[in-house]
Amino acid sequence: MNVPQSDATTHFDAATAVARTETGDLVAELDGGWNVGPGILNGGYLLAVAARAAAVDSPHPHPVALSASYLRATGPGRVSLAVTRGPSGRTLAHSHVVLSDAGGPTLSVQATTATLGDTPPDYALAPPAIVPPEECLANHADIDLGGNPVPTVGLRDFVETRLDPTTAGWAVGRPSGEPVMRGWVRLTGGRPADPFALALFADVLPPTSWALGLMGWAPTVQLQVLVRALPAPGWCLVEARASEVAGGWLDEDYRIWDSTGRLVAQSRQLARTPR
Amino acid sequence: MNVPQSDATTHFDAATAVARTETGDLVAELDGGWNVGPGILNGGYLLAVAARAAAVDSPHPHPVALSASYLRATGPGRVSLAVTRGPSGRTLAHSHVVLSDAGGPTLSVQATTATLGDTPPDYALAPPAIVPPEECLANHADIDLGGNPVPTVGLRDFVETRLDPTTAGWAVGRPSGEPVMRGWVRLTGGRPADPFALALFADVLPPTSWALGLMGWAPTVQLQVLVRALPAPGWCLVEARASEVAGGWLDEDYRIWDSTGRLVAQSRQLARTPR
Repeated sequence: MNVPQSDATTHFDAATAVARTETGDLVAELDGGWNVGPGILNGGYLLAVAARAAAVDSPHPHPVALSASYLRATGPGRVSLAVTRGPSGRTLAHSHVVLSDAGGPTLSVQATTATLGDTPPDYALAPPAIVPPEECLANHADIDLGGNPVPTVGLRDFVETRLDPTTAGWAVGRPSGEPVMRGWVRLTGGRPADPFALALFADVLPPTSWALGLMGWAPTVQLQVLVRALPAPGWCLVEARASEVAGGWLDEDYRIWDSTGRLVAQSRQLARTPR
Repeated sequence: MNVPQSDATTHFDAATAVARTETGDLVAELDGGWNVGPGILNGGYLLAVAARAAAVDSPHPHPVALSASYLRATGPGRVSLAVTRGPSGRTLAHSHVVLSDAGGPTLSVQATTATLGDTPPDYALAPPAIVPPEECLANHADIDLGGNPVPTVGLRDFVETRLDPTTAGWAVGRPSGEPVMRGWVRLTGGRPADPFALALFADVLPPTSWALGLMGWAPTVQLQVLVRALPAPGWCLVEARASEVAGGWLDEDYRIWDSTGRLVAQSRQLARTPR
């Protein structure tokens, strides 16, 4: 599938939109295209939808802290979003969002919203050195898994990904042995990133376990995303790193910088290692 | 206050115990001693209590992922713990714990429990180099804030802390300017650490903003703790690092290694900067 330029500018907004029904409930129509395999929706996509629900009735527009437990896999189609509001003030507002499909809750999210400004940071970690997007590996085009089929990941139609060749040895049959992955990402069609897109980007790269030669899906158990600043337009630089792979468990630690080199988001997830 | 050796071996267990009332509710008696200032209980202590509640009815004994929203400050005394159980299986179990005092909810925690084993890691980040505990700065004894009173932190009576002198310039009036802090920690009296103690240790050091010269309490907004392995007895090495301080917000990223050098826990929190 190719995403036409004109539609794509609003595709992320449409795919993550929440609406209020006549009975006052919040609902969303999850788009099956945002998958990481047949019928399996991307965890960052689901988190972006939950973040939209948290923002609906908040006095603050920006999700700054999101912690999600992935209770079970979520498929495409209609879901409901039950929001329980917590304390709310001038600086921040808390809420708890439960996303449910016909079978019951699938995602439970603690959300904090706030109003991010344009204050320059007192301290901010600088981005790592990486070659520009045009010297990186494109979505599927440059990947060669030794004759094995490259997995079809619907997400890549909506998020352009350019992988740092120094961390993408696995893509050409030579896993680096270091669970680190870096790449440039942006929404296809050029829609600028915002805090909701950063929630998506916080789970957007392939599992770092691929760099250890452990190919396969690494289902997320719990994911925390912190949004630290409003991103400037353009490519975001994403670095993912595992600190430990043990006993069937894997962590993924993300840092995301915008096109100006400002650290705009961080995330950490606990996942199961591919079987 | 000095904690007598004989009592101290079980003080952590007593201070974090949860009990079931005749009506079936879970309750705890929060110990005002575990504070970071007058009437303000430590966030890691509160998280350890919530983790105990999550484990009570779980088929799995170990909290492996905890995400807590700190809704408002929690004082000492009786609290209730409402546990909503999520999906549960052979590998892990999800639950949601709400800790409430007489005024309503103060802490909302998503918990995942599992059964950690003794499998050697496939990959684990090595600890940083640091001098042994006896060459580090002791709790209050070695700290000199230029004649200003050293804040009374009850927590330090229960958790022995030895600060790496290379990251504790703030303690002798010379903040390093780098928001990094390292130290050795253990429960006073020698009780070995376990996953519940690691939840405590994940918020145990002074705010890294002190290394920037921003002295004062940095209230936690949201804290995620991942427990990766069962710790060996002895001192744990804790490293805290901020990646960004901006607009009144601060993150704290912890890694914790046990006495054998195994990475046993990670945490990240979003906090407000000291005023």
